[in-house]
Amino acid sequence: MEHLGAPRRGIIFILSAPSGAGKTTISREALKAIGGLEASVSLTTRRPRSGEVEGFDYSFVSEEEFIRRREAGELAEWACVFEASYGTPRAALERAVAEGRDILLDIDIQGAHQIKEKYPRDAVTIFVLPPSFAELEGRLRKRGTEDERAIAKRLKRAREEARAYPDYDYLIINDSLKDSLTRLNSVVEAERLRVRRLREDFAAWMN
Amino acid sequence: MEHLGAPRRGIIFILSAPSGAGKTTISREALKAIGGLEASVSLTTRRPRSGEVEGFDYSFVSEEEFIRRREAGELAEWACVFEASYGTPRAALERAVAEGRDILLDIDIQGAHQIKEKYPRDAVTIFVLPPSFAELEGRLRKRGTEDERAIAKRLKRAREEARAYPDYDYLIINDSLKDSLTRLNSVVEAERLRVRRLREDFAAWMN
Repeated sequence: MEHLGAPRRGIIFILSAPSGAGKTTISREALKAIGGLEASVSLTTRRPRSGEVEGFDYSFVSEEEFIRRREAGELAEWACVFEASYGTPRAALERAVAEGRDILLDIDIQGAHQIKEKYPRDAVTIFVLPPSFAELEGRLRKRGTEDERAIAKRLKRAREEARAYPDYDYLIINDSLKDSLTRLNSVVEAERLRVRRLREDFAAWMN
Repeated sequence: MEHLGAPRRGIIFILSAPSGAGKTTISREALKAIGGLEASVSLTTRRPRSGEVEGFDYSFVSEEEFIRRREAGELAEWACVFEASYGTPRAALERAVAEGRDILLDIDIQGAHQIKEKYPRDAVTIFVLPPSFAELEGRLRKRGTEDERAIAKRLKRAREEARAYPDYDYLIINDSLKDSLTRLNSVVEAERLRVRRLREDFAAWMN
């Protein structure tokens, strides 16, 4: 599904969602299904979970190392989620954009905001919502991993997080994984056709 | 390929191109291939060509009638092309947008500019270019309907018209009809997901 066309800058696609909306699955499948979309490897201070590979899933660093890099301006965005810090290395991101490669960032609302501020021309923000909160509640219950109090807390948090959607460019209602991937693919393909992403050598390229 | 989702405003998709780039074919096929896309019936002062149906292909009117409607503010855009006048009726267009229906306008650069000015929020402009001017020249020659002088004149005009692309939102390089339709479909699907098109009752709809 890759579009080989006019020379253009790369795009930073940002996917955010309230917890439980299915963002992580969409993001993982999109990297397989949509051509020319690369993952960004985040820096994190949390410990690796079983199966996670250093330098592939995350770059695992100490608190001190994270702070050092953040203060050296090496992070394009960073956020604190569930008592761990997460950040996106700036150099790799900017190199991708300059080289016309497209990156998919699976980050939270705070991080999305920072990236959009820093790269207003190159960042495209996409918000994923569950079809309804009743549906989200059903999904959480079905997992069966949490008690009533934890579910209620998660739902409350999700409703709060959902309020961020007006700040995003696109909204995908996650009815089904298949439809959401088709929609995300349309957003990626369309954004690749935007005139404002054309490189300055386009006029010469055309002749 | 129709997206049934959150309640939203309709979109005015505008397709423009230098002559010979293949816009008319893309536009005609898009109306068949892309779900939920309607044609707008233009007003024109030129005579019907063989096979053209009044009220379907065009509304054919006299010069006097055209001027009367234009001066009454009934046209969303109008332009003079090859000594005939063409215009888009305003009422039908605005009704479609309010009702959440999407319209495809196959209009020239002047008309596209007027629509974008009048409906900056609802209009999406797409420019179609041939893969190269050498390719365009080949296509014109292959038709065999024109002499060298006419071909040279057309090419010169096409090069001039092509300069308008920076004012558009999207650029489609028409390598093949199939790929162009896929790209146009992505633009349509993506624009339908834009947060800024959501109707004000969306927040209520979500719960």
